[in-house]
Amino acid sequence: MKLHVLSKIGQRTTEPPISWLMHAALSRPKLISLAAGFTDSASLPVAEARAALNQVLRSPKTGRPALQYGITAGDTTLRQLTAAHLRKLDLGGTPCRRPQNQGRRHAVPPERYSPKRLLITGGSQQLLYLTAEALCNEGDIVLVEDPTYFVFLGILQSRGLRARAVRLGRDGLDLAHLERVLQSLKRSGELHRVKLFYLVSYFQNPTGVTTSFQKKCGLLKLLKKFERAAGHPIYLLEDAAYRELRFDPVAGVCDRRTSDEMANSRRSQTAATSYGERSALAVPGAAERVIYAGTFSKPFATGVRVGYGILPEPLFTAVKHIKGNHDFGTSNLLQHLVARTLASGIYGRHVAQLQKRYAHKARVMKLAIKKHFPPAVGWWEPEGGLYFWARLPRNVSTGLKSKVFSTALKNDVLYVPGEICYAADPSRRKPNHEMRISFGSASEADIREGIKRLGKVLRKLI
Amino acid sequence: MKLHVLSKIGQRTTEPPISWLMHAALSRPKLISLAAGFTDSASLPVAEARAALNQVLRSPKTGRPALQYGITAGDTTLRQLTAAHLRKLDLGGTPCRRPQNQGRRHAVPPERYSPKRLLITGGSQQLLYLTAEALCNEGDIVLVEDPTYFVFLGILQSRGLRARAVRLGRDGLDLAHLERVLQSLKRSGELHRVKLFYLVSYFQNPTGVTTSFQKKCGLLKLLKKFERAAGHPIYLLEDAAYRELRFDPVAGVCDRRTSDEMANSRRSQTAATSYGERSALAVPGAAERVIYAGTFSKPFATGVRVGYGILPEPLFTAVKHIKGNHDFGTSNLLQHLVARTLASGIYGRHVAQLQKRYAHKARVMKLAIKKHFPPAVGWWEPEGGLYFWARLPRNVSTGLKSKVFSTALKNDVLYVPGEICYAADPSRRKPNHEMRISFGSASEADIREGIKRLGKVLRKLI
Repeated sequence: MKLHVLSKIGQRTTEPPISWLMHAALSRPKLISLAAGFTDSASLPVAEARAALNQVLRSPKTGRPALQYGITAGDTTLRQLTAAHLRKLDLGGTPCRRPQNQGRRHAVPPERYSPKRLLITGGSQQLLYLTAEALCNEGDIVLVEDPTYFVFLGILQSRGLRARAVRLGRDGLDLAHLERVLQSLKRSGELHRVKLFYLVSYFQNPTGVTTSFQKKCGLLKLLKKFERAAGHPIYLLEDAAYRELRFDPVAGVCDRRTSDEMANSRRSQTAATSYGERSALAVPGAAERVIYAGTFSKPFATGVRVGYGILPEPLFTAVKHIKGNHDFGTSNLLQHLVARTLASGIYGRHVAQLQKRYAHKARVMKLAIKKHFPPAVGWWEPEGGLYFWARLPRNVSTGLKSKVFSTALKNDVLYVPGEICYAADPSRRKPNHEMRISFGSASEADIREGIKRLGKVLRKLI
Repeated sequence: MKLHVLSKIGQRTTEPPISWLMHAALSRPKLISLAAGFTDSASLPVAEARAALNQVLRSPKTGRPALQYGITAGDTTLRQLTAAHLRKLDLGGTPCRRPQNQGRRHAVPPERYSPKRLLITGGSQQLLYLTAEALCNEGDIVLVEDPTYFVFLGILQSRGLRARAVRLGRDGLDLAHLERVLQSLKRSGELHRVKLFYLVSYFQNPTGVTTSFQKKCGLLKLLKKFERAAGHPIYLLEDAAYRELRFDPVAGVCDRRTSDEMANSRRSQTAATSYGERSALAVPGAAERVIYAGTFSKPFATGVRVGYGILPEPLFTAVKHIKGNHDFGTSNLLQHLVARTLASGIYGRHVAQLQKRYAHKARVMKLAIKKHFPPAVGWWEPEGGLYFWARLPRNVSTGLKSKVFSTALKNDVLYVPGEICYAADPSRRKPNHEMRISFGSASEADIREGIKRLGKVLRKLI
């Protein structure tokens, strides 16, 4: 018998669909890609990174620790700064009230933002992978939004995990549907295979949808309700990768400040990025069930791969040890660079600029869509992040083998077909009539021209 | 039934033994650690890294690509430079002859050093992990040297893999024993579970032993011989992490130059690091069975986590896709930094300095050992790397719970107990009478004092 030499993981791991899209882009030099999730190249903080690195490497005393091995969990200073940063994103600099419908003042215990529960990773992507490794055995079930981040679906496929998809609407997750999914898993005796709900909570990839704090409360409550039947905790993995890329820096649930406070905080280094819908970490009583994945890559520089996670025990320790086997810990040089940008205010100023820039590019895309897309195409406008989500009539496919896709490519414009963002869930057919359109990396001129080309294709084929 | 929430990997992954040693070190401020595998802090290239980063980030044109996402396999320029660097390490700048006993001139096909087969990773550690993931299922068997690199043993433990250990002597691997091990696995019907031999080929961690090119040829021949019975290829994973940390930069099998050529090459940027025992990639006919793991971390800066691998198909593609799920690719900023140091000659000059420095520190340690260790303690002197290997009489344990270890700790000196470097192989008892002693991070004064303290303990207890 000739046996396959690759492991099951090796055999299952396939080329990510986005690679195929990138190859397509490379072979057509005039192509405008509205597909890539790359960030805006012109906004990359070249001078800022240089200044910070010159600070880090200014002397042997400051430079040597940055060039030496560190500890697996991450640099102590960066962990402290990150924990404080995250706490501020959730709770603000000033005391903060609970969302309206929860009435009385609510103090979130500070322990849940402790640097001791915080792990620095190679981008937040690595935290997603490590969490899947530490929690899930082959055949286990992960609950995801429908649609969701397709690279996470690639992790599930590679590791032999099954996905069950929970409906997602313009206003966030469909909690009633989640309850039905959990009930059905309970009935089929599969609930003990469920350990995790994966939620991209802010300006979701691919739809741009943000899940409200209230929905996060409801979600955690539902997961808790089914834990007894599952026989173990069911965690919420909150992927907040796009959180800081919000267009309106001072809007949000947690914002109850006077206009004076707001004006003051605009001047301070982090306040402009500090307010908005709170994370699941702030849900009362839920700290032991929430894994929070954050990143400095997207809001600062994607070439600086530094992300982080907050994890409850026993996950924190397990994930840390597995990371030790992966790489001993994230590059100390990158960690010292990020710590320096956080401490000096470089980071906060850069994020504030980036928010304005993306808000502007999103407006450019919105105007172009309004002008060029036919009325039969619906679309969701995001309040942050990098993506618009367009919905064609149900009978018009946008998939890789569709007429729409090939005609768009022939007209030198590329989008991400919605179908690749849907999990392989046997309980429903994959929708294939949508598209993710990104304003992240394209220039303003290319956004206008790209949407014009796409509009032409859509008007012709619908 | 209360089920465990962690996955099997999560449950199996334990704290690495070295962490325990590091904790012990932290609680005793006067302790001299000869245990850590850290590199020499005073030699870290602070000014060199600053200069290279200022070059990379000198303008938006050069800086933006370094701060943006790249492709998973790695930066094209760095892959080319690395492939050329590796080819030079193996084949030299000038034509190179085969080892004596192979007679005629031998041309290694250049394809095996192609950048297309080269993957950039987060240190070579990440390549070890990815290779294990791509090749081995739970219960598979990995052949290792006895003793071997204990973090690799941690990976095996975590992933549910079994190790079979092959004897290692002062002159390298015991090939006759390897054949017996393979025969025995064939007899027991377990050969189909063997996919990999893991070899730390240069100045091995922990023993300092280097495996000759000739032995690599014999090793690959033996693995090949058992492939038919295994039903699939059996790979050699060559971990060359310490390769460039050789004390005598121009010694080695491949060195057949005149003294003029040597003088010239000493002046050129890479020559000083270019010659030595060749890697398994150069073994005739073996390119499709060799996975080569190299790194820039140890020879340049351990805080800059950039390693690389050369892999044959189908492994290259599988490992690349799995890495895509881990982290999309190693930080572009770090890759551009390393590329700049390679292209500018900074790297070559730094390695040449480092070689002298470690050679000196090793001499300091050798003299101290000669002076302070009792005659009953044997020890192996390395020709590169970071470690001496000391062997006590068989009846004297050096383990974590031994009298020797606790007395050493009481006298403020720390070593790595040999026992943690031995795989859990049921076919033999773990030796526990050895110790790994590192001159990597300790100062010269600390090396002298540390060995003096250790000698005192040994004289007292043997």
